[in-house]
Amino acid sequence: RINAQRLWDSLQEMGEIGPGVRGGNNRQTLTDSDREGRLLFKRWCEEAGMAVGVDSMGNMFARREGADPSLDPVMMGSHLDTQPTGGRYDGVLGVLGALEVVRSMNDLGIRTKRPVVVVNWTNEEGTRFAPAMLASGVFAGVHTEAWAKARSDRDGRTVGEELKRIGFEGDEPVGERKLHALLELHIEQGPILEKEGKDIGVVTHGQGLKWLQVTLTGKEAHTGSTPMPMRVNAGLGAAKIVQLVDEIAWSHAPLAVGAVGHMDCFPNSRNIIQGKVVFTVDFRHPDKAVIADMVARLEAGARAVAADIGLGIEIEEVGGFDPVAFDDTLLARIRSAAERLGYSHRDIVSGAGHDACWINRVAPTAMIFCPCVDGLSHNEDEKIFPEWAAAGTDVLLHAALETAEI
Amino acid sequence: RINAQRLWDSLQEMGEIGPGVRGGNNRQTLTDSDREGRLLFKRWCEEAGMAVGVDSMGNMFARREGADPSLDPVMMGSHLDTQPTGGRYDGVLGVLGALEVVRSMNDLGIRTKRPVVVVNWTNEEGTRFAPAMLASGVFAGVHTEAWAKARSDRDGRTVGEELKRIGFEGDEPVGERKLHALLELHIEQGPILEKEGKDIGVVTHGQGLKWLQVTLTGKEAHTGSTPMPMRVNAGLGAAKIVQLVDEIAWSHAPLAVGAVGHMDCFPNSRNIIQGKVVFTVDFRHPDKAVIADMVARLEAGARAVAADIGLGIEIEEVGGFDPVAFDDTLLARIRSAAERLGYSHRDIVSGAGHDACWINRVAPTAMIFCPCVDGLSHNEDEKIFPEWAAAGTDVLLHAALETAEI
Ligand SMILES: NC(=O)NCCC(=O)O
Ligand SMILES: NC(=O)NCCC(=O)O
Repeated sequence: RINAQRLWDSLQEMGEIGPGVRGGNNRQTLTDSDREGRLLFKRWCEEAGMAVGVDSMGNMFARREGADPSLDPVMMGSHLDTQPTGGRYDGVLGVLGALEVVRSMNDLGIRTKRPVVVVNWTNEEGTRFAPAMLASGVFAGVHTEAWAKARSDRDGRTVGEELKRIGFEGDEPVGERKLHALLELHIEQGPILEKEGKDIGVVTHGQGLKWLQVTLTGKEAHTGSTPMPMRVNAGLGAAKIVQLVDEIAWSHAPLAVGAVGHMDCFPNSRNIIQGKVVFTVDFRHPDKAVIADMVARLEAGARAVAADIGLGIEIEEVGGFDPVAFDDTLLARIRSAAERLGYSHRDIVSGAGHDACWINRVAPTAMIFCPCVDGLSHNEDEKIFPEWAAAGTDVLLHAALETAEI
Repeated sequence: RINAQRLWDSLQEMGEIGPGVRGGNNRQTLTDSDREGRLLFKRWCEEAGMAVGVDSMGNMFARREGADPSLDPVMMGSHLDTQPTGGRYDGVLGVLGALEVVRSMNDLGIRTKRPVVVVNWTNEEGTRFAPAMLASGVFAGVHTEAWAKARSDRDGRTVGEELKRIGFEGDEPVGERKLHALLELHIEQGPILEKEGKDIGVVTHGQGLKWLQVTLTGKEAHTGSTPMPMRVNAGLGAAKIVQLVDEIAWSHAPLAVGAVGHMDCFPNSRNIIQGKVVFTVDFRHPDKAVIADMVARLEAGARAVAADIGLGIEIEEVGGFDPVAFDDTLLARIRSAAERLGYSHRDIVSGAGHDACWINRVAPTAMIFCPCVDGLSHNEDEKIFPEWAAAGTDVLLHAALETAEI
């Protein structure tokens, strides 16, 4: 078993970096806080005897040598970046849980045949720079590095510039490291495990996602002196499309979800009719065909709304991944590890996207979930208990040992 | 007649201060650009032989002495502040037109019995600090100075702090200056005069307004892993209320107008369900009872939307004025001035709010409109022609001369 107290202490110490406003975190990717978190993680890895490499997308790899260094390593990890109003565990548990696995191997004097690598992927969250899971996507060959580095934030700063600025554009070519398998521990971010009182979720699948950025262009005009029939109100169009997103998601109940989280209104003055609104639609479902249906209906519906009001409309896909099925062999190891350790478990589908979903394309991959209170995540009030973190990390240890071979 | 070229040159010179992105202006109230515009205006007034006083709300008064200095002066003016994406003429024409009237009186060697005062009111636009027409409201006794100075912008800076910072918290007590009458020249900001080919609008009434700031509070949560029935989506509530505003305004067609120009979404991340949305509803109508009906229906409807989704809701009035009727004697002078000068004219109701609407409470007041292209205002593309500006200013000169007595 891992050292539950040490794991918890490390989680809390990392949680002090990039503090939010009520106990959570704002440690968005490639900010100064992200840099500080990365440096702490690097120090911890080196203290645990690992050698830390960084690739040119800023992905960090801490390697614990195996008895046979020529074998491909077993990777474990997730991401240290957070939402602007995020919790302390989303992603962080997967990275620091993996670190705790190595620390425990050190304590127990365990030597694995395969090397073990703890990874921190850059920009998993996708808030500052769309899409989410950006750098694991480059690693898996889904995006080119040039395209990923040109992604820009609201202020026009690019991923490439910001990597350089915080000193984490490493010298390793992205995707060059081979791996035997990847295991990602994560909080569920949904309500199922807690409700059913299960310790462990064995993540068999991840649902798919599509992000559509919609730009509506109307005409700025005075809210008082412009007659109603002369208005070309982009805000009214956005309002109708936000409702359409909700209706489309409900039409595929109970599995589909849809919402608009991001919306910027211009010029955003009380007495100017909105001349431009930019917002992003988020649709998800475990079945690719349903996502395609939702996207098609949204595009048609949004264009109809725009035509009706006289708005210009542009729809751009700014993120997307297909549903994935994780590796059966690894899943079986996770199940048997949970049983061996006496933890209750159930199979589960991930509602969120994860770096593992991309890495699954280039190596056998699986995920382990632990519950979180009220299923709440992407919220500073996100909460887990030390026992939950420990159970997930115990299972990660056992699955990793079996995969890395003793 | 006034000097049309000099007026136009001054309008364009002022328009260079606080440039927008496509030829308009971003010279929002109490910014460094506003300061620069005020200093230019002050210099011009002094060059025209006027003495410039500033009150503690930053209202600027440039006085041309009358033959009988003991008589109350005739005021003329408007505002130099602009929208974030505003035009060069909204407000500015009223101030620089008044200045041109004084310059023309100087050229012609005209001495009026009453003093003449050119005024620039602080924060007419209401974008940076709600409500609009803030400092003329304090002058007219509608708001207390303490309340007005505590109004804050998005970044928490107050009117009082910003007045001090730009050096325009003057030493005159607000509202102490007496006045015999106020004449405000302004662009129509609506389509009527241009469509009908009229040179001059004789503004008999101003319609009323209500601004309601609505704050919806939901629950930030993951857009992917939070099942639809568990969501408390503030963005969905806002979308429904924006549509309700539109429906309510149309239900009182053709005179009522309604829109939401300002909307801030939190935390504004693509994969977080919106936890908070703050937006401002703008309703207007020439009849107070209709505004009351629109407000009541909006409040009831918005509360129903919030209850349905499970959102917290707060509704705060952040601006409002009743419909006004301007002074008949002044209106008659404007009509006869237009006729004497050979300009076509019609009576008109103002769709926008103006400083004159507040000053009307403490002194006889009237407004003169000139057309603007396509009725477009609160847009950088706002446009008028030199002849239009000259016609309005000629009428202002004649109405002012008759009121100030030669
Ligand atoms: N796990 C997680 O929250 N990932 C962010 C990407 C997404 O699913 O929106
Ligand atoms: N004239 C003008 O645009 N005033 C701003 C206040 C309003 O919204 O009516």
